[in-house]
Amino acid sequence: MVEAWREWITSNEDALIDRLAKAVEIPSVSGDAKHRDDCFKMAEWMKKQLEALKVQVRQVDLGKQTLDGQQVQLPPVLFGQYGDDPKKKTILVYGHLDVQPAAVSDGWNTDPFKLVVNKETGQMFGRGSTDDKGPVLGWLNVIEAHQKTNTEFPVNLKMCFECMEESGSEGLDEVVIEESKTFLKDVDAVCISDNYWLGTKKPCLTYGLRGLSYFKVSVSGPASDLHSGVFGGTVHEPMTDLFHLFSKLVTPTGEILVPGIKDLVAPLTAEERKRYEVMDFSLKDINNATGSETTLSQDKAEVLMGRMRYPSLSLHGIEGAFSTAGSKTVIPAAVHGKFSIRLVPNLTPGEVAPLVTKYLEEEFSKLGSKNTLKIEALHGGKPWMSDPEHWNFKAASKATEKVYGVVPDLTREGGSIPVTLTFEVALKKSVMLLPMGRGDDGAHSTNEKLDKSNYIDGTQLLGEYLHEAANYSS
Amino acid sequence: MVEAWREWITSNEDALIDRLAKAVEIPSVSGDAKHRDDCFKMAEWMKKQLEALKVQVRQVDLGKQTLDGQQVQLPPVLFGQYGDDPKKKTILVYGHLDVQPAAVSDGWNTDPFKLVVNKETGQMFGRGSTDDKGPVLGWLNVIEAHQKTNTEFPVNLKMCFECMEESGSEGLDEVVIEESKTFLKDVDAVCISDNYWLGTKKPCLTYGLRGLSYFKVSVSGPASDLHSGVFGGTVHEPMTDLFHLFSKLVTPTGEILVPGIKDLVAPLTAEERKRYEVMDFSLKDINNATGSETTLSQDKAEVLMGRMRYPSLSLHGIEGAFSTAGSKTVIPAAVHGKFSIRLVPNLTPGEVAPLVTKYLEEEFSKLGSKNTLKIEALHGGKPWMSDPEHWNFKAASKATEKVYGVVPDLTREGGSIPVTLTFEVALKKSVMLLPMGRGDDGAHSTNEKLDKSNYIDGTQLLGEYLHEAANYSS
Repeated sequence: MVEAWREWITSNEDALIDRLAKAVEIPSVSGDAKHRDDCFKMAEWMKKQLEALKVQVRQVDLGKQTLDGQQVQLPPVLFGQYGDDPKKKTILVYGHLDVQPAAVSDGWNTDPFKLVVNKETGQMFGRGSTDDKGPVLGWLNVIEAHQKTNTEFPVNLKMCFECMEESGSEGLDEVVIEESKTFLKDVDAVCISDNYWLGTKKPCLTYGLRGLSYFKVSVSGPASDLHSGVFGGTVHEPMTDLFHLFSKLVTPTGEILVPGIKDLVAPLTAEERKRYEVMDFSLKDINNATGSETTLSQDKAEVLMGRMRYPSLSLHGIEGAFSTAGSKTVIPAAVHGKFSIRLVPNLTPGEVAPLVTKYLEEEFSKLGSKNTLKIEALHGGKPWMSDPEHWNFKAASKATEKVYGVVPDLTREGGSIPVTLTFEVALKKSVMLLPMGRGDDGAHSTNEKLDKSNYIDGTQLLGEYLHEAANYSS
Repeated sequence: MVEAWREWITSNEDALIDRLAKAVEIPSVSGDAKHRDDCFKMAEWMKKQLEALKVQVRQVDLGKQTLDGQQVQLPPVLFGQYGDDPKKKTILVYGHLDVQPAAVSDGWNTDPFKLVVNKETGQMFGRGSTDDKGPVLGWLNVIEAHQKTNTEFPVNLKMCFECMEESGSEGLDEVVIEESKTFLKDVDAVCISDNYWLGTKKPCLTYGLRGLSYFKVSVSGPASDLHSGVFGGTVHEPMTDLFHLFSKLVTPTGEILVPGIKDLVAPLTAEERKRYEVMDFSLKDINNATGSETTLSQDKAEVLMGRMRYPSLSLHGIEGAFSTAGSKTVIPAAVHGKFSIRLVPNLTPGEVAPLVTKYLEEEFSKLGSKNTLKIEALHGGKPWMSDPEHWNFKAASKATEKVYGVVPDLTREGGSIPVTLTFEVALKKSVMLLPMGRGDDGAHSTNEKLDKSNYIDGTQLLGEYLHEAANYSS
């Protein structure tokens, strides 16, 4: 028998989708100073939504940051509290309200800031649909479903929703550490819904995340851009230097060339390798998700380990070079190459940054260029691993069986949510990732989507998890 | 004694600057489909200006082209005729009315499409001020000066003004070849004002230009952009492939690595090297122009030859990658790298393209990537060299002495104006480049400028050249 609160969710999907559409409409891009006001607008909208559901909301100011050369105010963190029954468990949930940049010119088929529902496939396209506005609203949907059906809420729910996750969660760590002594002191476990199933069919629980070190490498030469006819062949060109440097970072087959990185990775045991071999995943899943057949390996376990337990290095782009359509004959004066390294135990940003800096400086000096090199370590986060035997995971596993009828895979993930580690360290409680979306959702990419079924069933999953968690003794 | 028409130019500089300001205001960017209407507007404005000076104007339609995936109309070529006295020489002048792309976000200090005159330095900033709207208007100023002072015009002047020079002069060659049998049949010599002095002080005449081969190299992998956390370490990344490929094109010290290119370059003779050694030019000039000390050599002649008589390869940028401020963690799905090679005798686009394609395909196959490579040769033009002993050059040399009081250097240039060669081949007459602007004008770059004195004295130079040319027997 399905309970009333779950039936309410199924019967009210249009209203819940409308809630998501309203959230997607606010272009809360945290990495772009031009959209900073929208991040504030997003936080304000969320505060009202929570208060309408009788959640007590406290807004914490994070001060200022320097962005695109301007001093701008950081958007606030929202702390919510729903229920304070000392007989109930207290679960902390975290999510983020900010999104990655998006523009139709990047290749979106529709306006990224308008939720477009494909009636046939059930796919709901929009920036933030799956990362992470859909999952955040899932928690609100659960509260509303219990209220509308007069169902007793199984736990005390505490919420932490921020607006800077896509830009390194600037300012959040300090606040979480501070609140861990007061507001978050009585939390029994933490649940974060901000990742994805491995493929498109089977749910999973995630007990590990890679960390991140993001670098900006600037090569500067002339004072302003030059005509390649007039100056080509006479000066050292920053672009040439940058291409040579970046070609030394990683091989086309994915091997990181920065000395010392490989040595820091925890060695693979035979037992651990087995976990990847048995995982419910095929190359077809990843090929479907990428829309190509470009995996680095044909071995399923190797591919999964490439995502979950090994570091990787991706070149993202160049700021300052010619980047639009057409054929401009320019020698860019100063170019800023961006790349990042995904980190796994035992690689930390603090250890990686000096290795990268030393290596790039050495390689640059070999180029014999008169241009100037500057290396900046931008945001970063340590990798995280939790214990999947904890009751927090058992509760989520049972909830998954109730909603989806299968035992979820226990996975690690390739992405980075640095605050996961902060919660674990500050609260000393189990932290778990309970994904709502699918592996092909395209978070951070063009045409990001969340399937309607994942939004609706996922909302039920979050609710069932809270009910199951209530059954365990802390 | 300075003649009346020259005095008129000096006395009317405000009106002449205003004419330039009006031309700069029209953003006639030929390489961007969004600005195609502005190219038409620019041609229309120019036609009116010419007709107001009693120049007979004929507009030639060039048909359509494909730009940014759209079918768009090519802007027209304007042919002008001023005077048809069979006793006078007929000089053909050429210039272009289109400009390179420009935006404040590229680093301009002022709106690129508003002419801003610095009263102290006399520098006039604006896209197209020096390349090539200022020089084109110089010819109009000369006609007006003669009319206003009732001075007999020394030659029959024929004009060819196009709007596609910055995008490979698409469609022009065929028209020039066609017109060479009719309208341009009686031309005695050709003068093009679309280049620059070597430095900032001494005028020059130019008898050689480099050609150009522009390439677009596309590497495609996944169907859409991917999250580097979820997919980093699992797939072949197009950016990694592109950086490896482009690092194989040219060394940081400017050596082109494409096999076969070097072998095609005409060998340097001791006598030729001497020409560069005696040229009135110092490293300081180029350092001032680039605002840096980044020359590939400390030897003046080597630097000049790097610009004038050797090929060069410049990497311009990447379309499809992350290119703005901030730190986006994306794996771009398809990236299009742009580079071009400046050509010298005996390198032609037809010979270079197969060498580049073969080499890049070989290097790509060595990468072991599952991504897809596509190489396109975009616009190109052959190099050009003329005879600097022709009366056309002698007339310009005398005119320079009259206006500037010095014998100009005889130079070759690094840039590419493919139509120069077309005129020479189609008309079988001497073609000369007579620059108006300075070496530090920043054509194609941010904060492009033309000095007021170069505009005013340069207008006088164009006029004196016509008077001197009239003195020689064809």
